[in-house]
Amino acid sequence: MQKVEVQLGERSYSITIADSFAGIDAGIAASKQVVIISNPTVAALYLPQVQALFPDAAAQHFLLPDGEAFKTLSSFEQVLGFLLEQRMSRDLLLVALGGGVIGDLTGFVAACYQRGVDFLQIPTTLLSQVDSSVGGKTAVNHPLGKNMIGAFKQPVQVLINTTVLASLPPREFAAGMAEVIKYALISDAGFFRWLQQHHAQIQQQDTAILAEMIGHCCRMKADIVSRDETEQGERALLNLGHTFGHAIEAWLGYGEWLHGEAVAAGMVMASELAASRGWLTPAEVVKIRDLLAAFSLPVAAPESMHINDFIPYMKTDKKVKQGTMRFVLPTAFCQTAVVDDVTEAELTEVFGHGYN
Amino acid sequence: MQKVEVQLGERSYSITIADSFAGIDAGIAASKQVVIISNPTVAALYLPQVQALFPDAAAQHFLLPDGEAFKTLSSFEQVLGFLLEQRMSRDLLLVALGGGVIGDLTGFVAACYQRGVDFLQIPTTLLSQVDSSVGGKTAVNHPLGKNMIGAFKQPVQVLINTTVLASLPPREFAAGMAEVIKYALISDAGFFRWLQQHHAQIQQQDTAILAEMIGHCCRMKADIVSRDETEQGERALLNLGHTFGHAIEAWLGYGEWLHGEAVAAGMVMASELAASRGWLTPAEVVKIRDLLAAFSLPVAAPESMHINDFIPYMKTDKKVKQGTMRFVLPTAFCQTAVVDDVTEAELTEVFGHGYN
Repeated sequence: MQKVEVQLGERSYSITIADSFAGIDAGIAASKQVVIISNPTVAALYLPQVQALFPDAAAQHFLLPDGEAFKTLSSFEQVLGFLLEQRMSRDLLLVALGGGVIGDLTGFVAACYQRGVDFLQIPTTLLSQVDSSVGGKTAVNHPLGKNMIGAFKQPVQVLINTTVLASLPPREFAAGMAEVIKYALISDAGFFRWLQQHHAQIQQQDTAILAEMIGHCCRMKADIVSRDETEQGERALLNLGHTFGHAIEAWLGYGEWLHGEAVAAGMVMASELAASRGWLTPAEVVKIRDLLAAFSLPVAAPESMHINDFIPYMKTDKKVKQGTMRFVLPTAFCQTAVVDDVTEAELTEVFGHGYN
Repeated sequence: MQKVEVQLGERSYSITIADSFAGIDAGIAASKQVVIISNPTVAALYLPQVQALFPDAAAQHFLLPDGEAFKTLSSFEQVLGFLLEQRMSRDLLLVALGGGVIGDLTGFVAACYQRGVDFLQIPTTLLSQVDSSVGGKTAVNHPLGKNMIGAFKQPVQVLINTTVLASLPPREFAAGMAEVIKYALISDAGFFRWLQQHHAQIQQQDTAILAEMIGHCCRMKADIVSRDETEQGERALLNLGHTFGHAIEAWLGYGEWLHGEAVAAGMVMASELAASRGWLTPAEVVKIRDLLAAFSLPVAAPESMHINDFIPYMKTDKKVKQGTMRFVLPTAFCQTAVVDDVTEAELTEVFGHGYN
């Protein structure tokens, strides 16, 4: 069992990574009021095991339909209504059992129910295990924008069970790997080589190797978030590939490509932009593309998409400050920085003739 | 002009009390994106003056209908939709111009819009000036309970203009005085005497006296909140009179009595309960009743209400911990403590034969 400590003063918590749901803190397991938020797919597989973590509670559950389409204010209101009908008090422990949608929504409910109750996160996708379980970003979508309504709310603990990944569709496992590779590209060339070397074991889902990989990502993200909880600076580096990626997701219509797939293509585009500035060699761009491709990820935007299709989305991105487009770009192999001097002209110059 | 500093580390802010809307921080006045949330009554009187505080912004506004009935998730969603339609970024400054309803709702929107934007509070009722402008409690109501959905969110500044109270209905001014007197009863016998001595000037709304009185209340609340931001301990004392008061409001139907009126009657009941325990003398209870009555406040629950009508509300109060009823009671004249050993039997004994 691995343990990662997220240091955030009085909001500190630990992430436990094991090949079961083991490792819950005794104080949390002793909760007397527990409500588990999940979806039917995940609940069918794991709900009884998770209920059994709480011997002192008759843990109730509320299921939301599966999918990003239900990460809405309406679902938020439904969950809150359920909690009030059940007369849950401020002593309530909310449990998020599922992927990013369940985690983001449950965290936001936990932030707002009676101005804040505890929540335990049990992420069941690779993406949510390495990404949304660390950092405290919670949110729901609005028809006019993704993640536009939310809060910063830290869980009391995160329980990661690597064996649940065996029930994940292969395409979703690959999408999670895009975020794993992102950590290497941000600042860790050693981890990049480790991923190249352990490709086969990762694809076979060797639980010890998965635990090591997930633990490494959580530790990297925890370090960054500890230094920059509310994303004033360094934390922005975690958005590598996201400015291009969000444009791909939005242009295709959300759900067409998975978030991780769009980020994979976005990281290649960020690398190509960096290469045109002389910050990466062509050989380094090839190495990055090859690792992504080895995990069955796309390495270019959809062929039908022109650079002019990207620009409107880039200008309305949540990360835009005072009207300037901001990109996270590699400044060397496995190093990154926030860059705000990219112009439309440069984008057209680099990408105007196709992506290769 | 008076200034009160609320010390909360990096979330510290100042409250400015003047006989105009003067005193805004230069950095806040320089905001380029400003949206003012208000209601038609208040906006008709003060919107142009508040817009003029922001020379660098074309300050927009969004008006909600007046009243507690609109402090809902639906209003929350409407305001968020407006901000998204106007493409407001994270640089947005939200301005709450109104009483507690506008302040609580706007603060909650500010807590959640893109996971948090700045907000400036301009409270226009006596109650919101002495109470909800300090402490960062924001919320909306749910059909199953008041203030059940919300967040802790501190404003960047609070601007109090004492002259706006001249346009407040006398009954609302009196209701604000209940909260003012509450501060004296919590821990400040000197302030109790000051209120007795300055009764006439307060009723005539002498602006210098009002500024001194409001400043004193804000300073007391700021001190308490600085020591206990998220209401783990001492902050609970601010609920003096509220356990009885909430029961009165809920039993009559919200809006029948004003919150401050119910709190006034609730403080008398808390004093009577304390007197029956020997913690106050009968003469001290009379002094408390007389000061409340001098400001035209009720000093007993509605005649038709029996103690048995109170108990169900007391058991579902948000302050209930593990099923125990909790009361804030005077332990001596102008001293208070949280008491959790009050039983139904004691309540029936003290109040079962009427309130006098």
